[in-house]
Amino acid sequence: MILVKIGGGEAINLEAVITDLAGLDQPCMIVHGANVLRDHLAQRLGMEKTVLTSVSGYSSVFSDQDALDVIMMSYSGLRNKQIVELCQRNGINAVGLTGLDGRLVQGERNKGIRVRENGKIMIKRDLSGKPRSINSDLLSLLLERGYCPVLTIPIVDENGFAINSENDDIVVQVAAALEVDCVLHLIEAPGFLDDPDDDSSLVRHMTRGQLADREAAVEGRIKRKLLALTRLCQRDNTRVIIADGRGENPVIEALDGAGTHIHD
Amino acid sequence: MILVKIGGGEAINLEAVITDLAGLDQPCMIVHGANVLRDHLAQRLGMEKTVLTSVSGYSSVFSDQDALDVIMMSYSGLRNKQIVELCQRNGINAVGLTGLDGRLVQGERNKGIRVRENGKIMIKRDLSGKPRSINSDLLSLLLERGYCPVLTIPIVDENGFAINSENDDIVVQVAAALEVDCVLHLIEAPGFLDDPDDDSSLVRHMTRGQLADREAAVEGRIKRKLLALTRLCQRDNTRVIIADGRGENPVIEALDGAGTHIHD
Repeated sequence: MILVKIGGGEAINLEAVITDLAGLDQPCMIVHGANVLRDHLAQRLGMEKTVLTSVSGYSSVFSDQDALDVIMMSYSGLRNKQIVELCQRNGINAVGLTGLDGRLVQGERNKGIRVRENGKIMIKRDLSGKPRSINSDLLSLLLERGYCPVLTIPIVDENGFAINSENDDIVVQVAAALEVDCVLHLIEAPGFLDDPDDDSSLVRHMTRGQLADREAAVEGRIKRKLLALTRLCQRDNTRVIIADGRGENPVIEALDGAGTHIHD
Repeated sequence: MILVKIGGGEAINLEAVITDLAGLDQPCMIVHGANVLRDHLAQRLGMEKTVLTSVSGYSSVFSDQDALDVIMMSYSGLRNKQIVELCQRNGINAVGLTGLDGRLVQGERNKGIRVRENGKIMIKRDLSGKPRSINSDLLSLLLERGYCPVLTIPIVDENGFAINSENDDIVVQVAAALEVDCVLHLIEAPGFLDDPDDDSSLVRHMTRGQLADREAAVEGRIKRKLLALTRLCQRDNTRVIIADGRGENPVIEALDGAGTHIHD
């Protein structure tokens, strides 16, 4: 089974990705983002992001109910159904789902962020958390019957509430719960770049050790992504590829060697 | 199995509906609308409805790609996941789906509307159609495993495209495809009213013949709704109730006799 993570950027060639997948002779599952759609929708609705800075200096987006509503509209609504529609047009019998549906991705709600307000330290708790387990029975049931699950946020917390989470972390959980032969991350770059501004700095091969070293050396959002990749690569039999989702045959080219391949 | 159609009005007491359903000792399935959310979102996004008038004088909303996008955001996204979340909080393991997912509701695209433009008669074809069949294998699979399907538009056309359709017509198809004991329509009125402006004109019982007579006597959108009900009531063993979704125990009260009950 191939698990494809489709990034939420605008330049990803969705039609090409789905056409490629339809031509493969193996079951597949998709996890996708929609951050550009989300930001665009929030802007059109005049809904500003709330960014909190913790006392330790770490900044993060605060997921309040408005933010969750926008996630439901852009990730679970528009982008998910656009991908399912493309699949159906190409003969892939896709079923769009969020982590809420059938408690597919069960998470643990974050405890809160310590912030300083008017000189006092307060705990602000939002609607976000980390995926901890997968309803693999439901996913297996769908895969066995020939359906292609198309999964995105939100996920469900301990009490049944919808919470925001990282789709990259969901990929790690799904890969651990199912027999995944290959995880393909499709992004808006040729793969992992030594210099983010220079496409020719593509790293074609990376060992797990090199990946862990890089993760230790960086900061910010990329660190979180590399950490998710490191966890993903702890599994022995899973091939992990990071490749360009913008081309005419993104999946075929990645499986043929394009992008960054992570191995022992 | 009880099939509950939840109208798309703002005054429906969603929490009460789901709490009631959680207390019932039988499998359930939900089909829902979201027209108020849809109109509200379209307005906030500055997207005007396009209404076409056919040469025969019949007016209808034109479903273009923008309209479908808004449907995906409001019906498949926000409202569907709000209902799934409420179910999960109350112990119902709901799975939110559209007619696109798993080709759950297969439709036939409308042939187009004949309109007069600049003195010429033209055919305008939009992204809408009628549901013709149901993937009952997928629905049965979910119901057998204890999941509660929560279904809404869009549906899928003959070529895999997303199209707009009437949720009331979807209810008719689902009731015909599955063993449904009771269909409960929850609306923003005490039931079927003789005079729409007078709640005391509630019709408590209606035979199928009376329903057909009323359908023949009215025009406009209500005619379409009554036609769907007439089709629904052609099934012998299905109890059909139209009841108020605004109370504290909408489902329990309807099953206990509130609203309009349609029988032989």
